[in-house]
Amino acid sequence: MVKLNAEEKLELIKRNTEEIIGEDELKKLLNSEKKLTVYLGTAPTGRPHVGYFMWALKVSDLLKVGFKVKILLADLHAAMDNTPWEILEERYNYYAVIIPLVIGAMGADTKNLEFVKGSDFQLKPDYILDVLKLSSITSVHDCHKAASEVVKLGDNPKLSGLIYPLMQALDEEYLKVDAQLGGTDQRKIMVLARENLPKIGYNPRIEILNPLIPGLIGKKMSSSVEASKIDLMDLPDVVKEKLKKAEFVEGDCDNGVMAFLKHILFTIKRDKKEKLIVKRPVKFGGNLEYSFYKDLEDDVLKKNLHPLDLKNCLAEEISKLLEPINKHRKELEKLSGLAYK
Amino acid sequence: MVKLNAEEKLELIKRNTEEIIGEDELKKLLNSEKKLTVYLGTAPTGRPHVGYFMWALKVSDLLKVGFKVKILLADLHAAMDNTPWEILEERYNYYAVIIPLVIGAMGADTKNLEFVKGSDFQLKPDYILDVLKLSSITSVHDCHKAASEVVKLGDNPKLSGLIYPLMQALDEEYLKVDAQLGGTDQRKIMVLARENLPKIGYNPRIEILNPLIPGLIGKKMSSSVEASKIDLMDLPDVVKEKLKKAEFVEGDCDNGVMAFLKHILFTIKRDKKEKLIVKRPVKFGGNLEYSFYKDLEDDVLKKNLHPLDLKNCLAEEISKLLEPINKHRKELEKLSGLAYK
Repeated sequence: MVKLNAEEKLELIKRNTEEIIGEDELKKLLNSEKKLTVYLGTAPTGRPHVGYFMWALKVSDLLKVGFKVKILLADLHAAMDNTPWEILEERYNYYAVIIPLVIGAMGADTKNLEFVKGSDFQLKPDYILDVLKLSSITSVHDCHKAASEVVKLGDNPKLSGLIYPLMQALDEEYLKVDAQLGGTDQRKIMVLARENLPKIGYNPRIEILNPLIPGLIGKKMSSSVEASKIDLMDLPDVVKEKLKKAEFVEGDCDNGVMAFLKHILFTIKRDKKEKLIVKRPVKFGGNLEYSFYKDLEDDVLKKNLHPLDLKNCLAEEISKLLEPINKHRKELEKLSGLAYK
Repeated sequence: MVKLNAEEKLELIKRNTEEIIGEDELKKLLNSEKKLTVYLGTAPTGRPHVGYFMWALKVSDLLKVGFKVKILLADLHAAMDNTPWEILEERYNYYAVIIPLVIGAMGADTKNLEFVKGSDFQLKPDYILDVLKLSSITSVHDCHKAASEVVKLGDNPKLSGLIYPLMQALDEEYLKVDAQLGGTDQRKIMVLARENLPKIGYNPRIEILNPLIPGLIGKKMSSSVEASKIDLMDLPDVVKEKLKKAEFVEGDCDNGVMAFLKHILFTIKRDKKEKLIVKRPVKFGGNLEYSFYKDLEDDVLKKNLHPLDLKNCLAEEISKLLEPINKHRKELEKLSGLAYK
């Protein structure tokens, strides 16, 4: 593995991100000798899907630049976001097996990767005292605003949804991290954390924001809308079938298929120094090869490439990515059966 | 001490109360062999005042009927209701000394009286898990409504004020009580507790509601408005001076002085089999004696008794009630100095 300098590290950290809050602090830290730690929280609410590759890739980047990465399997947060308490442990058990496989599939060395269960530290007196302290300086209004893009609040939100952001803020402190990684939907919670942690004596953390990529149908790849996502357990024919139904107007790149290709697949291909090969019968012009997303985009815009050919190509590529997960199919099916009754 | 039967016990429990929610359950329990336990929570927010005699009297009644009484010194609740965290321990320390003196002044046998500090059990994992569970089934709206008469929420309430009722509900379970005692301002929290505890597997509790008595000025004897209350540490001349300024329109009984006489002083007098003696110079008609509040009320309505004479009488009586507290003046002044800087 090539040793990167601070500038190269920053470049790799920033690749494909939407925003880094506290970039100057990050630069300083990268120039220091400090061993850096980042965390990403994932709450076992719905079924994990291929959109998770987005952050798994960034986790992989962060491991490559030398970060210690903690993955918070946020069981309590799931319960606070409408996951039934009765099934919480089973949801956690499924995530605890499948999430490491997702990250492992990205190919980085995982010796600096650690998994933490939320309820293992979030019920301790010191942590809870800080939750209460934060709650006494944060308004209902600000908690509601912070949670609004993350928690399913609905018309008559439960109180738990408003406690959720405060616990996420404190996770930065109690996981002893320098930075948090999350999607842009997490931005308001991250900003609340940066604004309020210092008020109870803690440092604000660096926030690394990944873009949200649209689902194959609709705007966000959501684990609660079955048709909008490809499940990590989907077999190749299901993947192919779902992609076939994905929105993709010929000549238009504004859809989930292209987004997945742009943000995820081309990044993986590039890291592996591979090209994307779109197979086509000779009578339709034969195979196409792309080293850069831009070239693919040009062909789509010019209608040189039919959506279905590209969809079939992506289906194969996704199924290839899912292979390491599929190897554990038996165990996962058992856990999944318990977790999603 | 005379042994009371179930009916007599119920009568004494109900004396001077506004309402008992779950009275049928209470009757059943009184007819059983079960040793009953009740709790009252007091949050060390402002300075305790003579309004506290209201619930201290009821505590005394409950001790007399054989209840075990737990007084929750609710330090965390105080912090969640705008008491600064930095001064919380000092506020608690003051309450921990003065509250037992207040209850002791009511004259009941205190061998079944126990004091519990909120933070000693409210930060434990089981308790907190239940707070989170309750928060996931209770709406922001309902928490706001429940807290509205108890917590100083203001225009932009802090989240802590909405967690407050959920913790109060769980205190019933974790203090292992059969009933809670509180003022009618607590009613919405008590109802929330009765409605929601069963949803997480706990029994609803009996709720004993004391009337709120008005302050000497304004509607509620509030610890945050200095002139509206007589502090437990006020010396006789201060008590006299404050009462002098109390609202009391001649011929009108709708004021804090009469309320204190009705709800508190006459109850104490009756238990001691004493009469209330209002001293007057012979030239103004001489002393007056009352065995019943009703007779006093009649004289006030008929303007047979001038407010100032009654105020002076009450001032003396209150100062007499404060004597057991005054005996600990030195220690209390030191603690008070630390608690209210």
